[in-house]
Amino acid sequence: MVVVMQPQASKELISEVNARLTEAGFLTQVIYGVKRTVVAAVGDRRAIESMGLEALPGVEKVVPIMQPYKLASREVKEERTIINVKGVTIGGRELAVIAGPCAVESKEQLMEAAYSARQAGARLLRGGAFKPRTSPYSFQGMEEKGLELLAQTAQETNMVTVSEVIDEESLQMSLDYIDVLQIGTRNMQNFRLLKAAGKSGKPILLKRGHSATVEEWLMAAEYVMSEGNQQVILCERGIRTFETATRNTLDLSAVPLIKGLSHLPVVVDPSHATGKRDLVAPMSLAAVAAGADGLLVEMHPDPARALCDGPQSLNPREFSELMERMRPVAAAMGKEL
Amino acid sequence: MVVVMQPQASKELISEVNARLTEAGFLTQVIYGVKRTVVAAVGDRRAIESMGLEALPGVEKVVPIMQPYKLASREVKEERTIINVKGVTIGGRELAVIAGPCAVESKEQLMEAAYSARQAGARLLRGGAFKPRTSPYSFQGMEEKGLELLAQTAQETNMVTVSEVIDEESLQMSLDYIDVLQIGTRNMQNFRLLKAAGKSGKPILLKRGHSATVEEWLMAAEYVMSEGNQQVILCERGIRTFETATRNTLDLSAVPLIKGLSHLPVVVDPSHATGKRDLVAPMSLAAVAAGADGLLVEMHPDPARALCDGPQSLNPREFSELMERMRPVAAAMGKEL
Amino acid sequence: MVVVMQPQASKELISEVNARLTEAGFLTQVIYGVKRTVVAAVGDRRAIESMGLEALPGVEKVVPIMQPYKLASREVKEERTIINVKGVTIGGRELAVIAGPCAVESKEQLMEAAYSARQAGARLLRGGAFKPRTSPYSFQGMEEKGLELLAQTAQETNMVTVSEVIDEESLQMSLDYIDVLQIGTRNMQNFRLLKAAGKSGKPILLKRGHSATVEEWLMAAEYVMSEGNQQVILCERGIRTFETATRNTLDLSAVPLIKGLSHLPVVVDPSHATGKRDLVAPMSLAAVAAGADGLLVEMHPDPARALCDGPQSLNPREFSELMERMRPVAAAMGKEL
Amino acid sequence: MVVVMQPQASKELISEVNARLTEAGFLTQVIYGVKRTVVAAVGDRRAIESMGLEALPGVEKVVPIMQPYKLASREVKEERTIINVKGVTIGGRELAVIAGPCAVESKEQLMEAAYSARQAGARLLRGGAFKPRTSPYSFQGMEEKGLELLAQTAQETNMVTVSEVIDEESLQMSLDYIDVLQIGTRNMQNFRLLKAAGKSGKPILLKRGHSATVEEWLMAAEYVMSEGNQQVILCERGIRTFETATRNTLDLSAVPLIKGLSHLPVVVDPSHATGKRDLVAPMSLAAVAAGADGLLVEMHPDPARALCDGPQSLNPREFSELMERMRPVAAAMGKEL
Repeated sequence: MVVVMQPQASKELISEVNARLTEAGFLTQVIYGVKRTVVAAVGDRRAIESMGLEALPGVEKVVPIMQPYKLASREVKEERTIINVKGVTIGGRELAVIAGPCAVESKEQLMEAAYSARQAGARLLRGGAFKPRTSPYSFQGMEEKGLELLAQTAQETNMVTVSEVIDEESLQMSLDYIDVLQIGTRNMQNFRLLKAAGKSGKPILLKRGHSATVEEWLMAAEYVMSEGNQQVILCERGIRTFETATRNTLDLSAVPLIKGLSHLPVVVDPSHATGKRDLVAPMSLAAVAAGADGLLVEMHPDPARALCDGPQSLNPREFSELMERMRPVAAAMGKEL
Repeated sequence: MVVVMQPQASKELISEVNARLTEAGFLTQVIYGVKRTVVAAVGDRRAIESMGLEALPGVEKVVPIMQPYKLASREVKEERTIINVKGVTIGGRELAVIAGPCAVESKEQLMEAAYSARQAGARLLRGGAFKPRTSPYSFQGMEEKGLELLAQTAQETNMVTVSEVIDEESLQMSLDYIDVLQIGTRNMQNFRLLKAAGKSGKPILLKRGHSATVEEWLMAAEYVMSEGNQQVILCERGIRTFETATRNTLDLSAVPLIKGLSHLPVVVDPSHATGKRDLVAPMSLAAVAAGADGLLVEMHPDPARALCDGPQSLNPREFSELMERMRPVAAAMGKEL
Repeated sequence: MVVVMQPQASKELISEVNARLTEAGFLTQVIYGVKRTVVAAVGDRRAIESMGLEALPGVEKVVPIMQPYKLASREVKEERTIINVKGVTIGGRELAVIAGPCAVESKEQLMEAAYSARQAGARLLRGGAFKPRTSPYSFQGMEEKGLELLAQTAQETNMVTVSEVIDEESLQMSLDYIDVLQIGTRNMQNFRLLKAAGKSGKPILLKRGHSATVEEWLMAAEYVMSEGNQQVILCERGIRTFETATRNTLDLSAVPLIKGLSHLPVVVDPSHATGKRDLVAPMSLAAVAAGADGLLVEMHPDPARALCDGPQSLNPREFSELMERMRPVAAAMGKEL
Repeated sequence: MVVVMQPQASKELISEVNARLTEAGFLTQVIYGVKRTVVAAVGDRRAIESMGLEALPGVEKVVPIMQPYKLASREVKEERTIINVKGVTIGGRELAVIAGPCAVESKEQLMEAAYSARQAGARLLRGGAFKPRTSPYSFQGMEEKGLELLAQTAQETNMVTVSEVIDEESLQMSLDYIDVLQIGTRNMQNFRLLKAAGKSGKPILLKRGHSATVEEWLMAAEYVMSEGNQQVILCERGIRTFETATRNTLDLSAVPLIKGLSHLPVVVDPSHATGKRDLVAPMSLAAVAAGADGLLVEMHPDPARALCDGPQSLNPREFSELMERMRPVAAAMGKEL
């Protein structure tokens, strides 16, 4: 980490900073420039967080060199993490396809969705039982009844379940029904929930926040992992930008970027990212070509009657066509469908 | 609300949309253009939310006309909401200044901060007992002990307390100690927490999310209000943009904008918005000139020793200088300090 | 187009708006809602631009329904535009690969780059002779000498040339040497330059602006086309967002989105978008899978000695490996390399 | 500047980097960390630009310490720059108010605008003769005729003129008529135009680009200054963000920020920033309170008939009311109106 002093910082202020760092166990070196002096410090970045160095008189800025995350980093663990849920793997050669409706609405709807998803080759079933909705007047989910339906349907179709939890209560309730717990975009920095997820011992699908940097996202994973749960799946689902033609801007570069920074698997959600049914297929193919370990695709037996996200949901036919188109691309990337 | 049909949409598809809307109790009108047909529908926008119209074949897009929020809107309540907490008012002629450290660290630290804040003219005392931190390795707050210290100190200095709650547990715990409950940036769309805040009956300081639009922010207020709690104070604290020279970009235009859309009071937090001590004073003055009802300013007896946000905290001298400089500007805006 | 009136707008104000629109040749319909009245107008959106309707008393906002661009729109021309430059096609079955160094530096450098690019299967050679640089102290390009080298080298390697023009002077100078004129990101809304490009009669590679919406980008193409030049190639090269881990955020969703809105070909520049050599290959594959008509890839015989953009340039070996990996993906998309 | 090596970088690669830097005249120091080695280099950052260090094998990233601009920096010139145009000063005690219509439309329109602006206390008259418009179908300006009208009107009302130039031709044409040349948002990085502006010897009003960082903006000023013209006025006019409730997001924090980084005067344009007439007055007051040296306000005798930007233009009455409300705020900031 490098502490940049202000041009007019006195020798005293410089040694004060130096002293503080040495005190804190850092190995330091003072470098005198023409205009500025900088103090380079070698040590654990985490120790710096609460030192308030930038508040010291004479300090212009503090430039961190190392990443703030450890457990999620490839520097700590080189080999890729492969998560195995009842025989379905995420992060390995298998391309993990998670499909299903935005919200669980009824036994029929879910059964029909699950059946066609499975038929087409998806092995993970998604469906929301607790819906965080922007409007208090929108449908909020079937809650426990929805979890039951998911578990039942998954068993009948031999699939693995993925469903969102929104607080500790819904998390506890989901433990008996759900195989992979999803933490949604709006809760990516709900640290209490992240810790609870870490304690749950279940694989966690961690969606990227609307405006979270890759570093903040990996720090959120670090929260889960620091509770002893290493089974984190990162899900890119689009970030918020100035562009309004799509619901969000899918940041596919984050996929290979994270592959370089972390050992965790990365999947992509083209449905929420684009918000447009027509863009789901091309962006699914692009995600696979970018090296994603899997996809999370919204699919509904009758999108026009869906209680949420109809506009971005594929119908069963569209979904199975997508799966067909995906095979050669997956093959080109050395992935199996 | 206007439903725009695709250029090639058939008469059948158009009447299907029309039927759906009429069915749902909307008063409709079909307008035939040269290239496109649009269906205009008059009625409650909320009814549309779960209709999935955009998923209907032939529909290009749905353009809402009305705002989605009701209780927070000036169309429902013209006169401004003035919140009275133990004699301190927010939203009226009085300029509400909320000051104090980012985190409660000790009796001494808090006492010193509170005393000088009160001296300088602030009547509300802030301090975090539950700290949502990006890193799991950073200081997480004193929790209940911190709440006790806050309540005690406020009583001794005759101030009103403001403190952040991060989940239902911390909210319940705060009820006995805190006068104004703060919902932080990262929880602006933690809908469970918003509902709990609504049920608490306490005034709620609702910070804007990192990347929340003004509309989403007002919808979050709507969540609190729809539970029967009309005492919501909106706090602009900077949004995330491409600019990295400041911690966030303070969106001061949101202040007069919201004054036009809503009857709720709006305060500004220049400390988190800028992340730089030097910018806190100028942006405080600017906020007042923009019409803000108050300010939330981080202040610490010894910023260089602060356990969090030292770089953006004013020391007591800087704070009282700011209060002095603020008087004429407040006066020019018809506000009292 | 829909004009939304303010809640309290009087009958007089409403008829004033109605009159103005009828006057301007619009077919109107007034729709009376519970809270609001809206005036729907059918006609050419372009006529509205200079009417200043939103400035009329009583008007809350004007909501356009149609796209503002015409010539670039698929509604005007259904079949895809295929551009043929000396036998190389862009927009058809052929995947157009444009490769070469950021800047032309010397005969040797360019020859080596061109030779290996051609070898690997690229048929278009890029190289900057006029460099718009953020710093006045950075290398600004070889200008005419660079153009000569490009033309020469392209002839010797039987390639087609692509090079950026930054003003009318450099455009005129390029006419004798360059086959495809590139308009750079910073000039996407340099309207004088766009018109000159329109008059040039040469195919134009139009890069998306740093913070241009897809609509603004298509409007820039409209500028070129409105001068009679229909040969416009759109180039997605990343947009500016809050994320700093990559140089820009590659908006790949824009590719299928534009395919739906316009008949113009779209290519992708993964080099400038990511700014990181490691991300160029995966994002090139993703671009092809998303349906791009081609790629623009920076390649340099010795990136570490490049006068600009070394960090994002591939060396010849990396480039030919990329081309090999691209074949199966291109094939899966029905494209030929 | 600090070069961060990859964790696995070999001793050879480290010395290669070190050698390169020493070669280039930098004073270096190698710092060996636990995970990483960094090479600190003292010298002129500009020399680094074209070294392509980040492309060297083993290099992870290059972290600059110093600002890239020199002439615009306060480190080079401590005292504030005050620009004097025919007795009107910008950057001193005087608050410089630039008012007038978006576009020059006619003698009458301009005369009426100028007269009331002057009456209300504005001493600088703005009006566009060359209009960069998003749509090729919108009004493009009166060009030379407009310049004549501006010069004439300014003389009759004893005002100073400000008008936008969009290329070298319009710049040359403006020299005889205009006192302060404006470089618009879209041309902030039109480097040819910046150099021509530098050679013109006229004061330059440099608007911030839609998505330009403060650093890039100051680098654009550096372009002008590096041609020998030190008379640059920076104009904050809003940046592009995800928020669509306002036309742009006015980044007022940039005002005090730049005051700390540079000696150049900074003015604010609340009209383009907000795009809403109702927000112009509050944001003008806020800008003055934030420490702006002046304002650029759009004003039109009859906004509803304006050929451009009517929705954000004040009428003469609104403008003079704003000037009245501004006096006490300006006074509080030690500025004269």
